[in-house]
Amino acid sequence: MRVGVIGGGQLARMMVPAAVELGIDIAVLGESEGASARIAVTTVGDHTDAATVLAFARDVDVITFDHEHVPQPVLRALVDAGVAVRPGPDALLHAQDKLVLRRRLQQLGVPQPEWAEVADTGELAAFLERTGGRVVVKTPRGGYDGHGVRVVSDAHGVDDWLAAGPLLAEELVDFRRELAQLVARRPSGDIAMWPLVETVQGGGVCREVFAPAPHSTARVERVAREIAHTIAAALGVTGVLAVELFETDDDRVLVNELAMRPHNSGHWTIDGAVTSQFEQHLRAVLDLPLGSTRTVAPWSAMVNVLGGPADGDLDARVPQLMADQPAAKLHLYGKATRPGRKIGHVTATSDDLDDAVFIARAGAAFFR
Amino acid sequence: MRVGVIGGGQLARMMVPAAVELGIDIAVLGESEGASARIAVTTVGDHTDAATVLAFARDVDVITFDHEHVPQPVLRALVDAGVAVRPGPDALLHAQDKLVLRRRLQQLGVPQPEWAEVADTGELAAFLERTGGRVVVKTPRGGYDGHGVRVVSDAHGVDDWLAAGPLLAEELVDFRRELAQLVARRPSGDIAMWPLVETVQGGGVCREVFAPAPHSTARVERVAREIAHTIAAALGVTGVLAVELFETDDDRVLVNELAMRPHNSGHWTIDGAVTSQFEQHLRAVLDLPLGSTRTVAPWSAMVNVLGGPADGDLDARVPQLMADQPAAKLHLYGKATRPGRKIGHVTATSDDLDDAVFIARAGAAFFR
Repeated sequence: MRVGVIGGGQLARMMVPAAVELGIDIAVLGESEGASARIAVTTVGDHTDAATVLAFARDVDVITFDHEHVPQPVLRALVDAGVAVRPGPDALLHAQDKLVLRRRLQQLGVPQPEWAEVADTGELAAFLERTGGRVVVKTPRGGYDGHGVRVVSDAHGVDDWLAAGPLLAEELVDFRRELAQLVARRPSGDIAMWPLVETVQGGGVCREVFAPAPHSTARVERVAREIAHTIAAALGVTGVLAVELFETDDDRVLVNELAMRPHNSGHWTIDGAVTSQFEQHLRAVLDLPLGSTRTVAPWSAMVNVLGGPADGDLDARVPQLMADQPAAKLHLYGKATRPGRKIGHVTATSDDLDDAVFIARAGAAFFR
Repeated sequence: MRVGVIGGGQLARMMVPAAVELGIDIAVLGESEGASARIAVTTVGDHTDAATVLAFARDVDVITFDHEHVPQPVLRALVDAGVAVRPGPDALLHAQDKLVLRRRLQQLGVPQPEWAEVADTGELAAFLERTGGRVVVKTPRGGYDGHGVRVVSDAHGVDDWLAAGPLLAEELVDFRRELAQLVARRPSGDIAMWPLVETVQGGGVCREVFAPAPHSTARVERVAREIAHTIAAALGVTGVLAVELFETDDDRVLVNELAMRPHNSGHWTIDGAVTSQFEQHLRAVLDLPLGSTRTVAPWSAMVNVLGGPADGDLDARVPQLMADQPAAKLHLYGKATRPGRKIGHVTATSDDLDDAVFIARAGAAFFR
């Protein structure tokens, strides 16, 4: 069995251990020789070039992804050439285009924030008027980690973006906290879900994850599962799907965004679940039976390492962390430090939530 | 940080996931492009050739091993060239030469079976006479997995071996069961130990491991730890050391053999402990602080996949195992099937020993 991953970032990198353990050969189409997933990079090239991607796909049983940036024409060319592409282009489109997603969720009756497609200042002004004078505007494509997202109260606040085409405007949701429901689905339809988790964002970037989401009501857990199940099945997702959710002050659960690949909200599963999201993703895209999503400890906490030390010397911090927190699970992505960049994460598992959070935070703090 | 591993077998292969997670670059000197650790093989060459090994060592921070077969002159050449070699040649000699080991353990007062160096038929006859007429004879070097080991009751039973030099003769120990104490030691002297485990051997090959060793007395656990600590410290071992032990019918603990590298008796730690033996080995040889050896479940069971299906088609069995045992952790080594060959293992963790053993055995059985 041989899996080809397009994109050489940390998600591809973290698929490598799972592939090695399962006896699966893994090849990565990376953006450079020094990509995060470099140990598996067999081809360096441009993922927007159909010829490059087709050549890379020739020797693998299935193509999957580290990111959602492969253009639809390239995805279609793969399918036309008989390549198994998982998730497929029709599903992936919903992770690539936020307007397509909003329309589809509306059709499916999945709860989501108030939203509108706005093509000009007048439409944005009308939406602002309707939703309290302050909204979030997003570029439908290409946004990530806070990029392509702007909070505006002035209808002229995104004039620079409107020239490029219609935008997505969303109500500013009064939320109590953010949640994520991670699910895996194989082509045959089987679905597996990990527990609902709480995610803590800052500046549009995931900072911490607590698993399971503390103090969740059974209703919220059930609704989150139903939403994730509906989306995975209706969109025909194959592989891991992360559904990012708002838990509102008035106790509703609304879909924020989707990712159709392993996701930051599931990194804790490497250390905290019987089957990690990376192993499950490989199983799912190869149409293998899914593994147990049981947790190995009552609580897991994951804290991202963002940016890294100003001197860029990660290696010097590693012994300090290891000496101070022998139970912390360190994950570094082989990336250079840069302000705000996700360069690693630290997970801790425990019988006690506070203990897990303390260890993970203490560990990650060594990289400031 | 960059680690170079000499030897491309499954032990090197299983260091790869740990290296990837810790952000450590790993390079392997493998015997072929298709070696088990192929994803990390950067050099294909002969580990008995000093020039090959020296060239491989040039780009790494430390050299360590997948096996104990690198000749002493090659190890010494590395040290002379200023390369950090862990474990070092003086320590490794005890894992390479069983006579050297027996002499040293005797000096240290470590309990071991009755033994003798026998250079000819007369000496073997005398040892047979002294120890009940039936003994184990071992070639001092090069034996593994039952090779180089013969049970004899006739002083002429190893005439074919005697021509090559003195042999090690050992009493046939009346043992209740076999145990293994896994320990890791870093150059600075810090030591970490996982719980004592029970190993089940068949035909000289490890078949199953139960962790912790069921029904162990506190005394046996303490003695095993003291033995492992004494050996690791006195021999100056760096990295993981496996001490294979007999628990005798009269309740003594005797040293059977050593391995100075991750060992089959520690494979369960990948799934069953906070820090796996592979991660710990990398930490130890890089002189990084050691990780927690806490178990993540009360019980772990590991069952080797030996030989594999007669049709050689491992991939066809994988979906069956996964469908039947979603909680089983499958580890395949990317090796071709061959009768008796270690090609993978299955681990299960549980609150209940019988449950863990059942799942691991049921999983491994799919590869018969």
